[in-house]
Amino acid sequence: MNDSFAPNSVPKLTGKISPDRIRLLRTPRPPHGLIEKFKSIADATSVIADVMDELGISGAVGASLLKPTLPTARIVGPALTVRNIMQREHVYETARARVNRMAEFEAHNLALPGDVVVIDGVAGVSNMGGISAQTGKRQGEAGAIISGGVRDVGHSRRVDYPLWATEITPVTGKWRIETVEINGDIQVAGIRVSPGDIVVADETGVCFVPIARAAEVLELALAKAAFEHEKCNAIDAGTAVADLPSKE
Amino acid sequence: MNDSFAPNSVPKLTGKISPDRIRLLRTPRPPHGLIEKFKSIADATSVIADVMDELGISGAVGASLLKPTLPTARIVGPALTVRNIMQREHVYETARARVNRMAEFEAHNLALPGDVVVIDGVAGVSNMGGISAQTGKRQGEAGAIISGGVRDVGHSRRVDYPLWATEITPVTGKWRIETVEINGDIQVAGIRVSPGDIVVADETGVCFVPIARAAEVLELALAKAAFEHEKCNAIDAGTAVADLPSKE
Amino acid sequence: MNDSFAPNSVPKLTGKISPDRIRLLRTPRPPHGLIEKFKSIADATSVIADVMDELGISGAVGASLLKPTLPTARIVGPALTVRNIMQREHVYETARARVNRMAEFEAHNLALPGDVVVIDGVAGVSNMGGISAQTGKRQGEAGAIISGGVRDVGHSRRVDYPLWATEITPVTGKWRIETVEINGDIQVAGIRVSPGDIVVADETGVCFVPIARAAEVLELALAKAAFEHEKCNAIDAGTAVADLPSKE
Amino acid sequence: MNDSFAPNSVPKLTGKISPDRIRLLRTPRPPHGLIEKFKSIADATSVIADVMDELGISGAVGASLLKPTLPTARIVGPALTVRNIMQREHVYETARARVNRMAEFEAHNLALPGDVVVIDGVAGVSNMGGISAQTGKRQGEAGAIISGGVRDVGHSRRVDYPLWATEITPVTGKWRIETVEINGDIQVAGIRVSPGDIVVADETGVCFVPIARAAEVLELALAKAAFEHEKCNAIDAGTAVADLPSKE
Amino acid sequence: MNDSFAPNSVPKLTGKISPDRIRLLRTPRPPHGLIEKFKSIADATSVIADVMDELGISGAVGASLLKPTLPTARIVGPALTVRNIMQREHVYETARARVNRMAEFEAHNLALPGDVVVIDGVAGVSNMGGISAQTGKRQGEAGAIISGGVRDVGHSRRVDYPLWATEITPVTGKWRIETVEINGDIQVAGIRVSPGDIVVADETGVCFVPIARAAEVLELALAKAAFEHEKCNAIDAGTAVADLPSKE
Amino acid sequence: MNDSFAPNSVPKLTGKISPDRIRLLRTPRPPHGLIEKFKSIADATSVIADVMDELGISGAVGASLLKPTLPTARIVGPALTVRNIMQREHVYETARARVNRMAEFEAHNLALPGDVVVIDGVAGVSNMGGISAQTGKRQGEAGAIISGGVRDVGHSRRVDYPLWATEITPVTGKWRIETVEINGDIQVAGIRVSPGDIVVADETGVCFVPIARAAEVLELALAKAAFEHEKCNAIDAGTAVADLPSKE
Repeated sequence: MNDSFAPNSVPKLTGKISPDRIRLLRTPRPPHGLIEKFKSIADATSVIADVMDELGISGAVGASLLKPTLPTARIVGPALTVRNIMQREHVYETARARVNRMAEFEAHNLALPGDVVVIDGVAGVSNMGGISAQTGKRQGEAGAIISGGVRDVGHSRRVDYPLWATEITPVTGKWRIETVEINGDIQVAGIRVSPGDIVVADETGVCFVPIARAAEVLELALAKAAFEHEKCNAIDAGTAVADLPSKE
Repeated sequence: MNDSFAPNSVPKLTGKISPDRIRLLRTPRPPHGLIEKFKSIADATSVIADVMDELGISGAVGASLLKPTLPTARIVGPALTVRNIMQREHVYETARARVNRMAEFEAHNLALPGDVVVIDGVAGVSNMGGISAQTGKRQGEAGAIISGGVRDVGHSRRVDYPLWATEITPVTGKWRIETVEINGDIQVAGIRVSPGDIVVADETGVCFVPIARAAEVLELALAKAAFEHEKCNAIDAGTAVADLPSKE
Repeated sequence: MNDSFAPNSVPKLTGKISPDRIRLLRTPRPPHGLIEKFKSIADATSVIADVMDELGISGAVGASLLKPTLPTARIVGPALTVRNIMQREHVYETARARVNRMAEFEAHNLALPGDVVVIDGVAGVSNMGGISAQTGKRQGEAGAIISGGVRDVGHSRRVDYPLWATEITPVTGKWRIETVEINGDIQVAGIRVSPGDIVVADETGVCFVPIARAAEVLELALAKAAFEHEKCNAIDAGTAVADLPSKE
Repeated sequence: MNDSFAPNSVPKLTGKISPDRIRLLRTPRPPHGLIEKFKSIADATSVIADVMDELGISGAVGASLLKPTLPTARIVGPALTVRNIMQREHVYETARARVNRMAEFEAHNLALPGDVVVIDGVAGVSNMGGISAQTGKRQGEAGAIISGGVRDVGHSRRVDYPLWATEITPVTGKWRIETVEINGDIQVAGIRVSPGDIVVADETGVCFVPIARAAEVLELALAKAAFEHEKCNAIDAGTAVADLPSKE
Repeated sequence: MNDSFAPNSVPKLTGKISPDRIRLLRTPRPPHGLIEKFKSIADATSVIADVMDELGISGAVGASLLKPTLPTARIVGPALTVRNIMQREHVYETARARVNRMAEFEAHNLALPGDVVVIDGVAGVSNMGGISAQTGKRQGEAGAIISGGVRDVGHSRRVDYPLWATEITPVTGKWRIETVEINGDIQVAGIRVSPGDIVVADETGVCFVPIARAAEVLELALAKAAFEHEKCNAIDAGTAVADLPSKE
Repeated sequence: MNDSFAPNSVPKLTGKISPDRIRLLRTPRPPHGLIEKFKSIADATSVIADVMDELGISGAVGASLLKPTLPTARIVGPALTVRNIMQREHVYETARARVNRMAEFEAHNLALPGDVVVIDGVAGVSNMGGISAQTGKRQGEAGAIISGGVRDVGHSRRVDYPLWATEITPVTGKWRIETVEINGDIQVAGIRVSPGDIVVADETGVCFVPIARAAEVLELALAKAAFEHEKCNAIDAGTAVADLPSKE
């Protein structure tokens, strides 16, 4: 792994966003082992959504809204958040003058291995292209979740960088949008996400687990997964439907 | 095949729904050979949609609305219908109190081999999860059609149980919805479906054929498929476009 | 290649549309080499969308709207345009009377090898089925772009004819729609398309390049692709994010 | 008032729906005074939505979805429920053969003064026209709530019968839909409604209060309305914003 | 009335559209008395939609889609059709260069008194502003129906020119769209409209009656309106619901 | 006017939001006379949208998206911005525990007379109720623009406080959302809005004019309005359509 990823040092900034708009230079690290244990759960988003229901926490979004570009990808990692909004200048002006105010490259620059970039982005335009995906991959990110468009789907697939996005479009955001905040509190598909929240994504959707509740969610999720495994065994063993084990 | 599937006996009920809300314990069986003959038609939903147009019957829904989870799956079978509606209690209460009023497991319990479970379900939440899909598979069902969400897409794919659904989401319906009727008349994607209607589904969409018209539809569909086969041969043989056979 | 494709001869018309509604019998041919050079660009729609931004031209549509039926297909070719609108008679009448006013077969008839059929079609019904796709394939077309539904997705995949469409549905347009113009100016997904405009389509979306600007777009696109290649090499070589080459 | 409205007698049925599909001939009567007290609350739907939140009950729908035809109308009354689904026959056949399976007239027939007809109807077609509205008005109904289309908006306004509907369209449901249940459990705009539930509607939206909780909801709503009245007085009196009374 | 409106003379063209794109200089005149008789029908769009159903003709659109700007306006007249599509140049260029290719003023120029301008327009931008509405009013038009946006709603209201449109937006179409055809066959909200078709619009929606069927539609509509009038009288007279007159 | 409104003093804060999330305590004041001159323009949003097109500035939103609650209201004033996002806790918990994190009252508290509160709010819930509207009215605000729901429409109408909102719903945001920023840069209906930008709203829609460009926009808008006035006079005077004055 590249030395520049060390949590205690910070790389040279790209300058694509004013430093005072970067709320945290490094996303908080999750407790040791937490990520791996979440990864051990099959069909994890459904299990976690159930547990969050029981704990009174919102946080699950369906794959019909946040659609995966790599259908069988599964990722878990802490959120590095980015907020994009539209520029006011017409694109023809900004494209010719090359006024690029997108700063998701600064997010890649600050990412630690395993981070998941989560973008509260703009609809109708791309908030992450192929070169950006390749950069994220090289930085060791687990992938990205984007409310808004992405592009170069072939490129991000070739470098095996998984994306969950609301939209695919070749229209660049480069001349159209501005990144106004990194590692602030954002909202993605109706769910609040804070830096360091645990992101779990698979082909059923995406769960955002508040970091303060993550250990509690994990424990209940592991228990639930074990119970479900047992129930599947009972089905395979031919147990009558009316006799299947139930916790309800 | 498990003895408990014999049409003349009925398994022990699960009790997840009041028995007086089950309009028919067993879905009517289609005439001998009908299912197999429908299965012999390539691109069946398009052919059947055409024939129903000529007979003045509505009943075709596009794959853009009822999206397949297994892209190349093709199924034919009689409909076992389920109707779900929302509960009134907030989910936090029901999740903690484990008030589960979903009863699609009762549908699996009553399913005969080859049945297609058709759910007039609730949007935004899952009306069928992976354990439920696995149970349906074991019961010998052909698959399921769901107006509403499903989850655990990886699980249902691993057990090879095909689903056509309007939505994918990890959010459970377990604590949110109630099954109010089994084998009643329902409406799915704007089409009325009655128990025993023949369901034909492929990657182009889903057709619901009223059982009373099914033999008539089949006969015309087979003739149409034969004509189309002939037209394809003419194309392959290099017949000029203006000289291709036509029935119009 | 079939002799009937020779640009200077025109095949016998099918008669499915009045000849005075065919604005051009043959789509204008692009300059020699232009198609091949556009094909050499990886992730071409994103690159071309950027260049058109700089030139003040609209013309890119996302794959979320025009969805590919063959996910990894990539095509480039001149547009052969078709405009469909609804009939006024109820379908039951037209289906029984076999009143078919669709004329995309006339478009296939007039297509030259490499053409892309672009249909300003009707939502909710199919504007191109499997036999039509097979005919287009035989005629040497590159594929088709359709604002509206298509059907027989299995069939078009089997003959390897790629489609980008807004919708998939088994419901035929045959008895419902009428082709009112071939090779006129149409609008697809909010973009004006004229016959001979260059269509570039991949899994990120579709670009329509006005033929009058195509050489200019190509030149800038090739330069941009070369620069991006260089940037990707820099990423692979481990260049720090803040030091990556940039034109902005 | 017409004698036929007496709760203890039932009028001659219209026969438009099979009697065994009428789950209750008369909607349960609310406790004495309850309707009038709910009517005394200004901006009632907002107040009641708040109280239901505190009690863990879902049941409020916005006026953006259920749009009023008489902007300033306000109604309160017990729900008389109707469920409509699509017919399968093409409309041209049913229109010529005059096959009318809509039975909201049976609902008017069974309505007691003050009832609110609530229809789980069909989108894209009218589930209640002007003559039907005039009939409902004569029967003494408070108005109607319809998930689906309505028509003859001028007519219903002239007879002063208020409607909240998801859609306005001249297309009749008469030849297209079938009423399959009266006074069963239905779902309207995502909310379960049972016969006798209290419907409160104004220009902000519609609340459905479960009859079993109605007294409790009313008591809290009256208290909340009194507190809000006091707060408004404080505002008018010039109290600084930071000093306004608050219960939070 | 201004002499320039005489059907046999044609005014000087504005030149905003190439004359060969004007398919008919004057919209065909309806039979004498037809317009007035249609105007005599209360809640006309619902009655006409019913009659067209019985004749197997599509042609009714709901007010939820084509929304009136003057709620109680009612108009009847022959259609003068206009088709608009997007330009390809970015708006900043066209706005500064004042490239205006909209030609609905040519339609006003060619309008005869009583005509209804029907625009197959562009979404998201205005296809008719206040000065245009004022011009249409002066020319004696009955009003306009627009698939797409309109603006200056206050202006068109002040001059009492009624509009039914899918959208209201201040964003001009002037620099964004191009009128490509006047008095051709267009499609509005899924309905084909030809020049001279009879447009009937009220607060329930819009009906487009094919001119070839208009006399037949009128006759049946008058009979239906008379029957409905009788039924309303029966309701007012207190006839029991089960005894109301019915034709079904 | 209440002394507490003086721009140089700041009232006691409500504490509903952390003071470090208030980016500016007072919205910048527009140049003297600017507001009044903008108010003098009839159909102002259309005129301003045109002028911004010519200057290459985005900033107009249609009334189909931001719908007025008082149809004929027209307002102009500087933007006081608020950003709301969802809470993570289930509403049942927060409603019972009375955890209210909405802080638009702090915005009212800080508002100077003539300010327009602009909320980047949450869909599906109310971001401003009747008591809040009444407070805004008392503070002298011109009105509010809200991306998201509002409620108590009757209340805000009674106190004559105009709102433009994307949605109307009785469901409170009080227990569901959190105000995370006051007077930061927000995005409303796809348009970036900064504190102090000039908001112009009428029944055609809403324009957001960047304060740095406001004088330039005003000058061009006044000239354009004068020209349009002249053109209307020409229409009234009977000038032939082809001879109307034009700047294109």
